[in-house]
Parts: sequence; C-alpha cells; structure tokens
Amino acid sequence: MSGSLKVAGFRASGVPAGIKKKKQSKTGYDELDLGLIVSDVPAIVAGVFTENRVKAAPLLLSKERVGAKNKVRGVVVNSGNANACTGRQGEQDARATVDVVEGVLGLKSGELLVCSTGVIGVPLPVDKIIEAVPALVGGLSPSGTADFSRAIMTTDAFTKTTSGTIKVGNKTVKITGVAKGAGMICPNMATLLVFFMTDAAISRALLQKALKEAVDASFNSIVVDNDASTNDTVLAFANGASGVSLKAGSNGLAAFKKLLSALSIDLAHKIVKDGEGATRFIELDLVGAATAAEADRAARALTTSILVKTAFFGGDPNWGRIMAALGSADIRFDPDKVDITFGKIKVARGGLDTGREKAAAREMKKKEVRVTVDLKAGKASRRLWTTDLGHNYVELNSAYRS
Amino acid sequence: MSGSLKVAGFRASGVPAGIKKKKQSKTGYDELDLGLIVSDVPAIVAGVFTENRVKAAPLLLSKERVGAKNKVRGVVVNSGNANACTGRQGEQDARATVDVVEGVLGLKSGELLVCSTGVIGVPLPVDKIIEAVPALVGGLSPSGTADFSRAIMTTDAFTKTTSGTIKVGNKTVKITGVAKGAGMICPNMATLLVFFMTDAAISRALLQKALKEAVDASFNSIVVDNDASTNDTVLAFANGASGVSLKAGSNGLAAFKKLLSALSIDLAHKIVKDGEGATRFIELDLVGAATAAEADRAARALTTSILVKTAFFGGDPNWGRIMAALGSADIRFDPDKVDITFGKIKVARGGLDTGREKAAAREMKKKEVRVTVDLKAGKASRRLWTTDLGHNYVELNSAYRS
Repeated sequence: MSGSLKVAGFRASGVPAGIKKKKQSKTGYDELDLGLIVSDVPAIVAGVFTENRVKAAPLLLSKERVGAKNKVRGVVVNSGNANACTGRQGEQDARATVDVVEGVLGLKSGELLVCSTGVIGVPLPVDKIIEAVPALVGGLSPSGTADFSRAIMTTDAFTKTTSGTIKVGNKTVKITGVAKGAGMICPNMATLLVFFMTDAAISRALLQKALKEAVDASFNSIVVDNDASTNDTVLAFANGASGVSLKAGSNGLAAFKKLLSALSIDLAHKIVKDGEGATRFIELDLVGAATAAEADRAARALTTSILVKTAFFGGDPNWGRIMAALGSADIRFDPDKVDITFGKIKVARGGLDTGREKAAAREMKKKEVRVTVDLKAGKASRRLWTTDLGHNYVELNSAYRS
Repeated sequence: MSGSLKVAGFRASGVPAGIKKKKQSKTGYDELDLGLIVSDVPAIVAGVFTENRVKAAPLLLSKERVGAKNKVRGVVVNSGNANACTGRQGEQDARATVDVVEGVLGLKSGELLVCSTGVIGVPLPVDKIIEAVPALVGGLSPSGTADFSRAIMTTDAFTKTTSGTIKVGNKTVKITGVAKGAGMICPNMATLLVFFMTDAAISRALLQKALKEAVDASFNSIVVDNDASTNDTVLAFANGASGVSLKAGSNGLAAFKKLLSALSIDLAHKIVKDGEGATRFIELDLVGAATAAEADRAARALTTSILVKTAFFGGDPNWGRIMAALGSADIRFDPDKVDITFGKIKVARGGLDTGREKAAAREMKKKEVRVTVDLKAGKASRRLWTTDLGHNYVELNSAYRS
C-alpha cells in the first residue's frame, strides 16, 4: 500500500514549465510544475469535485466533460497557479491548455481533463504552459508517475503515491494513486488533487460509486479549515488493461472497493502528515453523539478550533478547550457526562478532571495522538484526522506569496 | 473615552491571592488575581452572559442572582482559574467565595455576584481565595479600579478601562468600564469579562436593554474563534448616586445609551488590539449580502479563516483566500460580481484581480487594516473587528498552561 506500481496502459510525465517562478535557475526552470497522465485507450472516468460555490475554471471544464462522457484519455495538471477567480480569461486559458495537449497527442477535442492548483486570482501563464507541452508529451513514460507526482506539488513537502493489487481469479488488478495536498488541507488554497489509475474493467456507475465511498471515508475526513477549496478534485481512470471485469455484486468488485478505500485513506493520511508545519497527526473519534450530523458537527468544531489545535502543538492536555468548543458547536449533550481520552489516558470523566494530566501530557507529545470524546448522548460517531497548529504553519501560510 | 473616572458610590480593589501560581516570588505572590467591586448602596444590575452550552459555575450563580434580583451590591472576580467543568465542587467553590466576601463585608446572602476567568477544568483553589478576602475588602477604595483591572487579567498584555460622562440638566452622569480579554478573544478560554459602573438612576429594564444593545454592537462584533466561552460575562451596576434619573424616552437616556455603546466599542477595540500575539487590527465590512444572517455568516467565515488570518499576518493581499472562504460560507452570491477592497485599494472588481497588488500590500502592512467585501447580492451588511494570526498567538496559546 505504498510505492507506485506501473499500471498497464497508463503513461505519465512531469516537466518544468516556469509557472512556479521563484526557483528559476540559470539553467532554466528546475521545479516541475506541469504534469500529464494518459491512458493508451479511452478509460472509464469517475470524478468527485469541490462543493465550494467558487469553482475554478479548469474544474468546471473537467466536471462538464466527466458529466458528458463515460470515457476520456487522461488529464493535464499544472501547479503554481489555481486558475481560480480568473473570469472568462480563466475559462479560455483552461480550454487552451487542454486544446494544445490534445492536439500534440493527436486526440479528439474533449478527450482530456484539466486541473490546476496554486495561488488564486492570478491569470494562468498559458503561454509558458503551451511552450512546455512538447516536452510534456515527449516525456510520457510508464514510469512517469514519479515526475507527475512532483509536478503537481505546491506547498507539499514530499510526493504522495500509493499502490495496491487484488487477485481476481488468476489475474491481477492494480490501482496506483497520486495526490497533492499539504494540510491542514488548506482548503482555501486550492490544494487537494488526487488521481487514481487502474487497469480494471469496470462500469462508469460502479467506479463512480466506489470512488465516492472511498472519498467520504478518506479525503472528506481530513478537512480542517473549511469544507472544500475552489479546485479540489479526485479523479479515477479505469482502462481495462488487466482483462478483469468487475461486475456488480462480485467478490472482485468488493475487493476493488476495499483497496480503493484503503489507498484513499493512505493518501489522506500522507496529506495530513505532510501538514503545512504540522508536528503531530491527530486521530479524533467523536462518539456517543445523538445523530450522525451532530457527530460530524462536533468533530469538525474540535478539529477546526484554533485553540484546540494550538494546545496540541504545545502538547498540552487542555481538555477544557475541547469542552468549550463542544459547547459552541450547536449539538445536544450534557457537559456533566462527557468523557475525554488522550491516547489511553482518560483526562475527563463525567465532565470532571481525573487528575491524570502528567500522563496525558506524555500522550499528547507523541507524533500521533488519538483523542476520543464521548458525548454520552447517543450512538452516532465520526472519525476525523487532523494536525496541530504551530509556528511552521503560520510561517508557510503567511509567506505563501510574498 | 479613556482613563478611569471615579464613579460616586463605588469602591474597588485587587489583591494577590496566589491563584496565578507561576510568578510567586520570595516576598509572596506578586501578581494580582482577586478583585472586588462594591457599591455603597444596592445598585440596579444588568447582565449579559455566554450562550455556550458549557457554563462555568460562577456564571450560573451570577446569572441566577441577576435573574432573581433587581439590585445587588457588587461582584468578586478571580483570574487564573475559570472554575468551569468543575462539577458540584465548582458550584460549592463559587458559592463559598461569595459567602465569605459577603460575610466580611457584612452583606446579606445573595447580594454579591461572582466571576472567574482562566484555565478550565481545574478545581478552584478556594482556600487561597478565602485567605485573601480580608485584604481584598480592606483594600476597597474609590480609586481601586486600577488594581481591580489588573486583578482580572489573564493573558492580557495591558489593563483595559474606559470612562465617559454625559450632562443631564446641570448634573453629570459617569460611566466607567473595566474589561479583560485578549484576543482573538479566545472564546474557548473563558476570556471576556466586562464590568460597568455608573452613578445614573435607571430602571432594571432600561439598563438591561441599553447593555444588550451596547454588547451587540461591540463585544458581539469581535468574536473570532467561536461564539462564546464558558465564562463570558458583561455586567452593569447603576447606583443612582448622581441623582440623575434616566426615564424611558428622555434625551438623558438616549445620551446614556450612546455613551454606553461608545465605551463598549472602546473596550472591545482594546481587547482586539491587545490581541494574543496580534500584529494587526482588522476592521471588516461585509456589505451587499442578501440577508443580515448571511452578512453575519460571511463576515464570521472570513474572520475565523485561519488562512485569511495568516495572510493578514504576512501582509499579503491574497484576496483569493477571501473568495474561497466566501464560497464555503453557505451564502448566496455570484463570485463574478464580488468587489474586495483593502484600505483604499480595490484588489478585486467583479471577481477579478485589478493588478494593484503592490499598493494593496502596502495597505495590508499597516497596523490597522480596513477590508471591505461587497457581495453585490443585496443590502445587508455586517461589521466585525478581528486580528491577524501570527507566531506570538501560537506561542501564547500553545504554552498557556505548560
């Protein structure tokens, strides 16, 4: 469930186009910022897109194409510029980008998707992109996923790929996923892009359903700041090259869905661990809520509270901040019944301190901290993954453009 | 509208009781952490209390007393411990605190209110408080507001007082206010306490209405993190010593309400400017919203976005983060119509960059930054005051207890 297996029938590449201006060196642009995934044959495609009311131009174009077609040939992605809040010019630029790549690849119009990630509100330097397209297409290779994964990074500290296989009869189905995103997930900064390639043969409807379920249990469980960015996109391409057809109700489909979810969670955890300045990985289990909606609301209140997150940074088992955040979360519970546990140490029982602060502080200072909050108000629960909030986060996010 | 006028008939004091343990020196506790305000005669009281579902024991006791009586004699306040999430013991400790102070003052039971602020979930060191009560009462003085204002501080960098007068006929009415709170307002940490003393003669109903209106336009417009803490309390005491009776519909009452609001805004601004680690004071005008509720929701989304706030810290006119935060705020607007202005520099018109980034960056680097976001979706507006989010904030909030 790591690495980056070659998936039959897919090629990828990544080149420096000069969109990420800052690191331009004398020998040319040295930072990859334009990537391409192409399937040798038309591939079934599924997509999950941001629910932000403000949607980037490339996202709108890709969403339209995924809605109109069952199959496409791949996706071109640039980093360094989100092409969001760029108006009609942005739409033209997104369209120009795919047009040129489709042309050089000899594809029909409409066969490629396009994604952008980076700063919002700045026109896309489409001339630079067009200039780099011949090298981008020329660089396509079955082992190009590594370059592709570098080309889609923005504030990411490391590339994020994941792979796995399932056996169906005597044949093997592969899935490889590539993601970018560093987080607090940073949903306001057009950050989350995920691409899955698989050689399974699967219908559009089944792939879409599998992808949606995988996304809900993974990428939709690591949001911290807000709900979604202007550019968040998860795409899956299935080209059938394995010769394995996954039918509804089959064991093969069940195994495929299980693997896709596991790979999604793996990538989601990598995104949280990359964490813009994060020093801890936090797994929050909010249990005992009256309803699923309240469990979600309470869990999100805790994982977005600046005060709770800075306490995690300091390794301070300050459970009072959790109580106060719950109290503002518009959920039903009795404060005098709440249990709060850090790691294996119960710090509050029935809303009262248990006197185990020192042991809890040791748990809090670990790289991975498990927190369980039991509202004792019902049976609904929600698990979310998040990070602490420390100096490096402030540094990265205050200096992003300047 | 600053300083701290003596208001006839009120005395105050502040002493070190040893609740703030850290700074204990060889000569005893040197940090004031226990304060008292007493009116020589029973004073009309009005109060506004937190709406957090988790309420501190002293707050519940004070709220009950304000509900039961029109007049009280004053309030005893400790800092360093919020006495919140402390169960039945906390209720007993809050009660013991007022009982002892009432006893030493020779008051009847129920004539004093009590407030606490500081860390949540830790039992109140009530023995230390009781030990300090004789000195607290002995120190009462018409010029004791200065000590009182120091005694109620937690993470505050400076004391916060404000005063003003109105003329009614040939007589003068005074109002003096004292507040504590440093913020991002830090509502999860039991932070906002405000006390007004006035020598006006005014009915309970009129004082309560005046206080509620003043609070809405001031302290309820500076929240940043969440809605309210476990301990937030605003109290006003009116003892009538000026001999001026403020009747419904009178010019005097109108002047009084205007002054109370102005003093509240003054204290609210001081709280924001104290800012736990804040480097900038930000005034946000969200205009052109479809409804007042949407204006409020949009303004709060912007002032609580970690990414928007870190951009302010960096002095980066990254208006894309504002657009993305608006898009997640569950409000109706057309992204292609939005105007965003920093100071006098319009950075986005009709959802598009105006190319004035350098001029905007100069505005953003000022100590006080005005931001106007026009949704062009209606006529509702909301003004909020907030701070940026920088390193000192992280430092203060991660190290608060350790």
